[in-house]
Amino acid sequence: MSLKIYLAQINNKVGDISFNSSLILDVIKNANEKKCDLVIFPEMSLCGYPCEDLWKKEYFINECLKELENIVAATKNTSAAILIGCPYIEKKGNHKAQIFNALFLIENNEIKYVIKKKSLPNYGVFDENRYFDASSALSYVDFRNKKLAIIICEDFWDNKNLYLLKEQSFDALIVVNSSPFEVNKKYLRLDRAKNFAKSKAAGVIYVNQVGAQDNLVFDGASFAVNKFGQIVKILKDFQEDFVIFDSNDFDKNISDLLIYKNSLDFLNLNDEDLRLVYSACVVGLRDYLAKNNFKNIILGMSGGIDSALVAAISCDAISSDNVKLYALPSRFNSNNSMSDARICSANIGVNLEVISIENIFSSMISTLYDYCSFANSSESSQLARENIQSRIRGNILMAISNVNSSLLISTGNKSELATGYSTIYGDMCGAFNPLKDLYKTQIYQLAKWRNNNASDLFFLNKKNIIPKSIIEKEPSAELRENQKDSDNLGSYEILDKILYEMIDNEKSISEIINKGFDKYLVEKIAKLFYNSEFKRRQSVIGVKISSMSFDKDRRYPITNSYKK
Amino acid sequence: MSLKIYLAQINNKVGDISFNSSLILDVIKNANEKKCDLVIFPEMSLCGYPCEDLWKKEYFINECLKELENIVAATKNTSAAILIGCPYIEKKGNHKAQIFNALFLIENNEIKYVIKKKSLPNYGVFDENRYFDASSALSYVDFRNKKLAIIICEDFWDNKNLYLLKEQSFDALIVVNSSPFEVNKKYLRLDRAKNFAKSKAAGVIYVNQVGAQDNLVFDGASFAVNKFGQIVKILKDFQEDFVIFDSNDFDKNISDLLIYKNSLDFLNLNDEDLRLVYSACVVGLRDYLAKNNFKNIILGMSGGIDSALVAAISCDAISSDNVKLYALPSRFNSNNSMSDARICSANIGVNLEVISIENIFSSMISTLYDYCSFANSSESSQLARENIQSRIRGNILMAISNVNSSLLISTGNKSELATGYSTIYGDMCGAFNPLKDLYKTQIYQLAKWRNNNASDLFFLNKKNIIPKSIIEKEPSAELRENQKDSDNLGSYEILDKILYEMIDNEKSISEIINKGFDKYLVEKIAKLFYNSEFKRRQSVIGVKISSMSFDKDRRYPITNSYKK
Repeated sequence: MSLKIYLAQINNKVGDISFNSSLILDVIKNANEKKCDLVIFPEMSLCGYPCEDLWKKEYFINECLKELENIVAATKNTSAAILIGCPYIEKKGNHKAQIFNALFLIENNEIKYVIKKKSLPNYGVFDENRYFDASSALSYVDFRNKKLAIIICEDFWDNKNLYLLKEQSFDALIVVNSSPFEVNKKYLRLDRAKNFAKSKAAGVIYVNQVGAQDNLVFDGASFAVNKFGQIVKILKDFQEDFVIFDSNDFDKNISDLLIYKNSLDFLNLNDEDLRLVYSACVVGLRDYLAKNNFKNIILGMSGGIDSALVAAISCDAISSDNVKLYALPSRFNSNNSMSDARICSANIGVNLEVISIENIFSSMISTLYDYCSFANSSESSQLARENIQSRIRGNILMAISNVNSSLLISTGNKSELATGYSTIYGDMCGAFNPLKDLYKTQIYQLAKWRNNNASDLFFLNKKNIIPKSIIEKEPSAELRENQKDSDNLGSYEILDKILYEMIDNEKSISEIINKGFDKYLVEKIAKLFYNSEFKRRQSVIGVKISSMSFDKDRRYPITNSYKK
Repeated sequence: MSLKIYLAQINNKVGDISFNSSLILDVIKNANEKKCDLVIFPEMSLCGYPCEDLWKKEYFINECLKELENIVAATKNTSAAILIGCPYIEKKGNHKAQIFNALFLIENNEIKYVIKKKSLPNYGVFDENRYFDASSALSYVDFRNKKLAIIICEDFWDNKNLYLLKEQSFDALIVVNSSPFEVNKKYLRLDRAKNFAKSKAAGVIYVNQVGAQDNLVFDGASFAVNKFGQIVKILKDFQEDFVIFDSNDFDKNISDLLIYKNSLDFLNLNDEDLRLVYSACVVGLRDYLAKNNFKNIILGMSGGIDSALVAAISCDAISSDNVKLYALPSRFNSNNSMSDARICSANIGVNLEVISIENIFSSMISTLYDYCSFANSSESSQLARENIQSRIRGNILMAISNVNSSLLISTGNKSELATGYSTIYGDMCGAFNPLKDLYKTQIYQLAKWRNNNASDLFFLNKKNIIPKSIIEKEPSAELRENQKDSDNLGSYEILDKILYEMIDNEKSISEIINKGFDKYLVEKIAKLFYNSEFKRRQSVIGVKISSMSFDKDRRYPITNSYKK
């Protein structure tokens, strides 16, 4: 007899126990109508993931467990059992209570099994040792004449566990996840599941969360792999999706539903990865707004590639009607930039308001004339003059945001944030930054990809959004006469390669020089990089794209004498 | 035969391996001149603590271990053995290398023992599970006819370890630490050591680091306790100190060197705790500057208590010569405030520059007149108008900071940051904030304490710095006519009590109401608190004072529907 398994790839909200519960109850009802045997929800479905220090509060966990009783009751006299994630407090005798990242297997008004996570991730963005105790063993469950191995997310990535699983006999492996998006993660998950299924000759079901939480985007893309290691089901990425899978299909030899090729070079992404990355930016921004109850975005448009791309992402995320664009020129902004900003705004169907900052800039300069030595043109007073412009823009945009209850979106890319080539309290102002974890060269790739592609995930049903002139012109902050980014940073092609080695690959300066990069340049970039740690610490959160985002993956001291 | 033990309470630098090494070598030389048997350095002395993700880099750890060879060599044919902290990589056969938080006992050119930390703290500000493997056992060492139990910091706070220690016989317990300052921590350490020593009838030596690293201040106050549980040595707090202790003193019954009474109410600190807290602020700021190679501070002086206190702390930290003060009045600032700012500046011997922001403010208002609906006086446009002033000040101070390579110091207190009663990119601008973890009512206590006390730790050899009128007047942001903080926040006395329950004690809204606080007020404050999470995430680092500072102790999602 086969099992009808319902994969419920839901988008829940951190801390919204009643919203999550009603979402879950709807799904259960639907699964029962379809006579399913088992509904599988993602990790920590009832509370959301990650809850961070909410998990430290016993009253929060107790409220989750209280709500779980309603879900238990909903399974009374129904066909579908459910497997659902929720934190769990275990109290044994006089011992200190233990808290687990757990799954509950619930059938006919009864909790049949509590499955506890064994391997707690405490690297990258994860801090699970801060919150949870670890189970000492993996869980096997007897369910309707099948034996199922059920594990939680990191359990699947710990080689010791796969070794233990291979020693046991069971019919299928179920992996329940809240696994955040990263370039190549989808490939890694599929590849690992396929290899395990084939070597064990057992099916694998992998259920992931979808939607965004602060800096993390969960890409969904849940799947089932048969015992031959072939992908037999794959759910949508970046959208809620619900699919019924028949366990008989574990035994049918077919051809793979999906051949996914990962990008070999992180700085040169293939089209499929660009689609995933762009979708992550859209969903990251969309959910940040929705889950924080904001409807509108405002954005400064410089005429450069970063703000143009963010404008496109914003319209794709919440539609052009909810986006307002402002150009805030000073004497240093070229006519070309203004015209590029106008064309791009027109392409996405948003009016561009133009507010000159000249009067304010003049007042600032005259008020500070003596204090900032503007009479001489030392590098430090030049720099102050540049930052003043950027901060006037920040002040204007924040004021407009205050009055309209709209969120200011920040547009600094990873290359800029890495080198400190951005003004703190100026262009770094904002509540969210979709480009935070993207190198400048990747920004260009994304812009070109979006010009050639659309998707039903995006509000804007249109291609060729970003004018060619924006993509082709030399990047400039336009904060002084004839300025180019390359005056300070060299070419972005080389810069990004060096930064990628330094940040993502955690290589030392000497290791990077040994790869053939110019010693002087590498040392200069390293200095910029380490000296701008204090800026990054005050930067706004943004979408995690790489395995070394600035938000939680990389945790560096500001006061640090080791800059190698 | 007794042991002469040298307690080396040093101030090292995170990542400055060669600086730390030369500091250590000087101490070793001195200890040998004094014919000591053993020199004890703090936890992780060679690399500094905490190194955060530097510890993930194998090349960094290898460089520490390479430098350790020089320290080993320095013990050749000398009397003094040394006990020194350093990260350690252990590679056994084909297993994955393990990284430990370790101590090396070095004698006559040889590493005699490697002692590995057993209990890794992964709560509060600590993330040691991210970096280290845990030892499975405690370490006992035979040294010159004595048996010593040697443990590292958190090992001492894990009750299981004290239980294990009590089962073993040894002559003395050595605890090697990098234990950051917190109110009452000194009392807790002493109390725990005294109780252990008495119950075990064995001496305890506790060596702590001193100095600051980013948000953490290590207060030193290393000590020795005899087998009767009496304090027989205690080193200075907040300063480097070096003391020789004779192990015979473990057996001599004396009267305690120190009776330390902790404050019973965190919001009403006693004089001794105020001295410690003020010292932490001074050392936190001083070391942040020194270890980041900055010499000068600038500061906005409003005439209010926060900036007055920070001005005093700044002068105490780096002397009045290195501090510059700026008053930046708009039409809303009272003459009284200006006069208070002037008097306070004169008291600390710093000239007060006055720069009116009126012209810039007028340009901002006229440029944004239509965009921010300044014609009508809705609450949101009033708020925008307030924030504009604060951000103009931020822009001015940052420009001056850019030109003079001086650090802008931020002055927001914990009550303000908790309620969002501060302007992001405005008065929240700055590179460091000595008051970040202090409630407003504690700010008043500190100001009064400093008016009555001085210390050789402070540059300013003077009392009565902060004018009485500043301490006595009603607090106001002075951003609109006749504004008072209490219009929005109620009295700080009540506000701080509610915040303390909510934040430091992690109580739920209903638990706080059950303690007798007004329901409406508690709910209003909770809303302000949870809705300002995004501001805190972008706030500057500051000195940790409590067990629940905003920097690393409290880690909350921004997107969070659970506001209970």
